[in-house]
Amino acid sequence: MSQHPMNGPAIVSTEEPSANGGCVIGVDIGGSNLRLALADMSGKVLARKATSTRGIREAHRILSLIREGVEELLLKTALPSSALRGIGAGAPGVTDVNSGVVIATSYLMGWRNVPLRDLLEETFRVPAAIDNDVNAAALGESWTGAASGNSDFVFLAIGTGVGAGIILNGLPFQGKSWSAGEIGYMLVPGLSSNRPERDKPGPLEDLIGGEGIQNQWKKQWSSEKTTLPSELTATQIFDHAISGDALAAAILQKTADVLAAAIHNISLVLNTPLFVLGGTVGMHPALRDATLAVLASWNYRSIPRLEFSSLGSDAQIVGAIRMALDAAHSPRAAALFQNK
Amino acid sequence: MSQHPMNGPAIVSTEEPSANGGCVIGVDIGGSNLRLALADMSGKVLARKATSTRGIREAHRILSLIREGVEELLLKTALPSSALRGIGAGAPGVTDVNSGVVIATSYLMGWRNVPLRDLLEETFRVPAAIDNDVNAAALGESWTGAASGNSDFVFLAIGTGVGAGIILNGLPFQGKSWSAGEIGYMLVPGLSSNRPERDKPGPLEDLIGGEGIQNQWKKQWSSEKTTLPSELTATQIFDHAISGDALAAAILQKTADVLAAAIHNISLVLNTPLFVLGGTVGMHPALRDATLAVLASWNYRSIPRLEFSSLGSDAQIVGAIRMALDAAHSPRAAALFQNK
Repeated sequence: MSQHPMNGPAIVSTEEPSANGGCVIGVDIGGSNLRLALADMSGKVLARKATSTRGIREAHRILSLIREGVEELLLKTALPSSALRGIGAGAPGVTDVNSGVVIATSYLMGWRNVPLRDLLEETFRVPAAIDNDVNAAALGESWTGAASGNSDFVFLAIGTGVGAGIILNGLPFQGKSWSAGEIGYMLVPGLSSNRPERDKPGPLEDLIGGEGIQNQWKKQWSSEKTTLPSELTATQIFDHAISGDALAAAILQKTADVLAAAIHNISLVLNTPLFVLGGTVGMHPALRDATLAVLASWNYRSIPRLEFSSLGSDAQIVGAIRMALDAAHSPRAAALFQNK
Repeated sequence: MSQHPMNGPAIVSTEEPSANGGCVIGVDIGGSNLRLALADMSGKVLARKATSTRGIREAHRILSLIREGVEELLLKTALPSSALRGIGAGAPGVTDVNSGVVIATSYLMGWRNVPLRDLLEETFRVPAAIDNDVNAAALGESWTGAASGNSDFVFLAIGTGVGAGIILNGLPFQGKSWSAGEIGYMLVPGLSSNRPERDKPGPLEDLIGGEGIQNQWKKQWSSEKTTLPSELTATQIFDHAISGDALAAAILQKTADVLAAAIHNISLVLNTPLFVLGGTVGMHPALRDATLAVLASWNYRSIPRLEFSSLGSDAQIVGAIRMALDAAHSPRAAALFQNK
């Protein structure tokens, strides 16, 4: 597990950028985009790069994209490759942090037991660290984001899928077999299915993930119920809920009921007072307001605080930078690359 | 948090009992019984005592009972009071382990902010340690019980109430405000109420706790449905389910469906591969078999193992002995009681 102070330096600074002391790379490997950032040793981002990964799935091709991106970032910042001190990456799947292996990603990516850390270290000859993307985002929020200063919280990513990154006592908690927080399969009242099955979307994700919400809309849509089109995104549906569309409001309410139950269940188990909401669906204000209203209506002892991610789509890459800095300062670093 | 080896000494031994090196006391404070055990410094129990607490609620009266019990145990083992090295107690409520305060017990006991550790230390002039009773039981199972050798597991106590004691990385995990594992309020499909409310039994407990199961039976009972009486205990109902009573079987199935969902949800959050079942309801073989069948029917990636508590009703007191031993060996011990 990464050791890190809870209050790290801000990544946006007015100081003159400089990487005389070296630099690190943060990588966010996503299903549709690969994002890279080069930061100095205080974590300040000096340059960024994003590239599409649509249609690109194989680990070696992703690795080539990362190498090209890093070269571009070094050129852009006029830094020699010898300035590179570490690299951190968030991967979209169950990740063994100790051995540096991506055990499994979703069917979209199809990775099985990819030794991503070793591949990164062989490619760049610097120490690397990897973690699951949601855990990386949680780490980012705990370092410089919405959870800065909070030792115990849960980062909830609600986009196409639904997942949780857990921070306990200031450190990422990944679980015995690296899948803690896989809450897309959670069972709460009001789901369409009460059977979690492998190789299918989880019942919770299937209802309150972005696609799930779109599907609810499509299923319930009729020209009598609404004047809106039958194809809308989750965030469009929530926008229309605020504007007064009754069908959209019903779907928002249903989503909030189910999300409130999931948050409540997680907070019972972990006793975490703070939830940071991320992802395009999770960051919609209408969803947070409606979910808080459900939680408040129960008159239960303790209501968790729900805060929006302050790093937004940067949360993962900021966490990856933190991991890269930790890797650069780790005892492994000196041992591994003496000959560099 | 207590530091303890995962494989402690067995508490039952054929060796000659001896407490030349000192002794400790483990206390299990329950709603109907107070149980005490005197153990030597290897954790071997040398004498026991149980006494009723029916009608006795005030902390000072419980403390008097503990003092009388300890005196009796010392007499019984022919040990001087100077042999006493530490005392550990499991309390039936939310317990701040660091400050040694029982923050709140259920309405049955009515304690609020009772500084139990200080009271025990003032009474006995030895270092004391306290924790929630279910956490104490989990600690007992991890030390010498069914979870011995497992660094990550959940102890599920299902008796009158429902609660979980969580062990992560070999240590009790109590949560930010000492209420991790309060799963009686969890929301899963199939409950009678989907609203967790303070000062009411939790929705999960209300269905699958001992009283909840009795109430299900009473509500659904009619002379057409069964030849059995309308008043049965939870374990009697499960016994009759095995013997072929259809109504009893339906209630067993419902309980198993709900328990399976709760176990599944906890294991998603914590990624714990093992659940140890305790409490009179939790240890009924029919419930475990039915719950395992539900979990297996889902075809989900990973099915948690369900093991019965091997310490049974001793789990809490064994955990309390472990806490007493840890307290006796803690740095606080020397500092606190130099003048003894």
